[in-house]
Amino acid sequence: MAIAVTGIGSLLTNDPELGTITDAAVVMEGERVAWVGPSAQAPAADERVDAGGRAAIPGFVDSHAHLVFAGDRTAEFNARMSGRPYTAGGIRTTVAATRAATDEELDANVARYVAEALRQGTTTIECKSGYGLTVEDEARSLRAAANHTDEVTYLGAHIVAPEYDDDPAGYVDLVTGPMLAACAPYARWVDVFCERGAFDGDQARAILTAGAKAGLTPRVHANQLGPGPGVRLAVELGAASADHCTHLSDADVDALASGDTVATLLPGAEFSTRAPYPDARRLIDAGVTVALSTDCNPGSSFTSSMPFCVAIAVREMGMTPDEAVVAATLGGARALRRDDVGRLSPGARADLVLLDAPSHVHLAYRPGVPLVSAVWRGGVRHTG
Amino acid sequence: MAIAVTGIGSLLTNDPELGTITDAAVVMEGERVAWVGPSAQAPAADERVDAGGRAAIPGFVDSHAHLVFAGDRTAEFNARMSGRPYTAGGIRTTVAATRAATDEELDANVARYVAEALRQGTTTIECKSGYGLTVEDEARSLRAAANHTDEVTYLGAHIVAPEYDDDPAGYVDLVTGPMLAACAPYARWVDVFCERGAFDGDQARAILTAGAKAGLTPRVHANQLGPGPGVRLAVELGAASADHCTHLSDADVDALASGDTVATLLPGAEFSTRAPYPDARRLIDAGVTVALSTDCNPGSSFTSSMPFCVAIAVREMGMTPDEAVVAATLGGARALRRDDVGRLSPGARADLVLLDAPSHVHLAYRPGVPLVSAVWRGGVRHTG
Ligand SMILES: [Zn+2]
Ligand SMILES: [Zn+2]
Repeated sequence: MAIAVTGIGSLLTNDPELGTITDAAVVMEGERVAWVGPSAQAPAADERVDAGGRAAIPGFVDSHAHLVFAGDRTAEFNARMSGRPYTAGGIRTTVAATRAATDEELDANVARYVAEALRQGTTTIECKSGYGLTVEDEARSLRAAANHTDEVTYLGAHIVAPEYDDDPAGYVDLVTGPMLAACAPYARWVDVFCERGAFDGDQARAILTAGAKAGLTPRVHANQLGPGPGVRLAVELGAASADHCTHLSDADVDALASGDTVATLLPGAEFSTRAPYPDARRLIDAGVTVALSTDCNPGSSFTSSMPFCVAIAVREMGMTPDEAVVAATLGGARALRRDDVGRLSPGARADLVLLDAPSHVHLAYRPGVPLVSAVWRGGVRHTG
Repeated sequence: MAIAVTGIGSLLTNDPELGTITDAAVVMEGERVAWVGPSAQAPAADERVDAGGRAAIPGFVDSHAHLVFAGDRTAEFNARMSGRPYTAGGIRTTVAATRAATDEELDANVARYVAEALRQGTTTIECKSGYGLTVEDEARSLRAAANHTDEVTYLGAHIVAPEYDDDPAGYVDLVTGPMLAACAPYARWVDVFCERGAFDGDQARAILTAGAKAGLTPRVHANQLGPGPGVRLAVELGAASADHCTHLSDADVDALASGDTVATLLPGAEFSTRAPYPDARRLIDAGVTVALSTDCNPGSSFTSSMPFCVAIAVREMGMTPDEAVVAATLGGARALRRDDVGRLSPGARADLVLLDAPSHVHLAYRPGVPLVSAVWRGGVRHTG
């Protein structure tokens, strides 16, 4: 069963040889891309869809999201943005709600936000645990994530669990011991929130090293709220990605430029906390590979919209529209060490997004406007 | 034919006596709201829609948009955001494309963007001329607008027409003379771009005064790019609204606070030109009525998304989520001197937006996410 999407006004392939093709077609066979080229030369197919001049891009790859949670934090957000004091529990509120939720509720929450993201053009999404913080709650969080995505990340080290307030070393022992043993079967990645008030460099090293021994590849929440050792540790340990990268020294940038670790920028977090944005321009000019992701979570960045992140990255972070769209597709794929997504060329997974616009530049040019008009994931069509 | 929408988790009425009602219902009869109150007390109706706990707000009132145009300006936007020089014609590009378009093309363009806005919850939208700049092109622009909205604004004084480069006074004579005579029958409002490089205070006064004599009520593009006389002139002439208000002196703020002129803020323009945002907090604290609108146009703000404007206003302009949502609904109604829209109470037009969220705060809390799940305009349901 071959499907040809023809009459694509502008096709961003993210393939260095194909580039951006005008008046293009993509032929999908089963779940793969079989052919890409000028529309006039498209081979015959069982089904033909006329894009009518619309632009097409590879599906977004959102390499950083926290979707296993219960409840939301509307009151906290409202108070923060209204300048009112708010003394309730922050992330602990979500931990309590998540622990109290049934497996079915957690699964439904992940399903809801994965579907919401898919409607907005996200065809690959990573999903972390981190609101359970007990052996069983972290393990069931990962099972819920694994029901909906292949990109599952063990983040037992999100914060120190409340029960271990007086014994953070004991919590690191739990995270690297029994919790890791229970969680590793469901995860591909291990992550840690390396930040003042969460886990320091030594703790982060212990957690990532233990994860790696259990077969998980590291990724790191690094340098979000202030300078710190996270980014250099990520590069040293060969992490796939250092995420946030908001406060970087020259040595941090040099480390990223010399290694294989992607810098994943999460402007939704700075947007929703009124914090300064990371400097994407500085990273790109230094030769660092940059990804854009949502950080979707109910506390600091409750957006699932990759187009929104693209628009903010162009407005605030020195990225060109082309760079931002590439970072949200190919960049995310690199941050997940995937070469089958984030591009539209033969052999890639058939993840294609049609935009109600003549160019992918419109994702920045028309901020906030829902431009996704159709989505194929693995060759299967979903409505935009 | 009465329709009851019941089980509304949170209903923002914008009515000072009704406030925000939890577990609410709205009954619509024909094109009007017949009843608002607690869901359990809702009277019988011919049709019942269960909101399932979703929040509802009055439809957005977008009181500032430029939808009568042809072409777009992707290359110019892309160059600006990529730091590349761009020497083509800016607004003149759109004037040339608009003049070259057929009436049918202009009409289709307005229809397209009015429909796009409606899908995003905008149930009242103002529409300006201003890309024709000849007697006939301005008049047919207004006819195209009037096919799709009642809120039509004559903006012959957008820029000096290219043919009058050497004779701006002659262009003011045209705008206040034959062009006004040809345009007044189709418009409710007269507007002028009062700014260095466009029309100065004296020219703006002549244009607005002539428009008022022809039965049009003034509104003014004022103090967008720098300080100037626009805001005080607007208040002096009893304009319904002074729009942009980005660069204000204390005297400007005092004038707005003492008069009936609404300050309409258009953050999409600052977003897409990387300009500093207007200070909504200062205006609200001074007692000024503030509206939020899109300024939708292909040059400086190509968004039609009122939720996007709400999110930016909260992030960047010192507004609370409540203030921003009220400014995007009731504020817009005041800027258009309408008391039948922008609120949900008996007698109002039945313009209701259901959100895929438990609270209207989510419009700021979940930036970029398409949260509009259903829209009624004048009691007629449209899909979100
Ligand atoms: Zn995160
Ligand atoms: Zn305008």
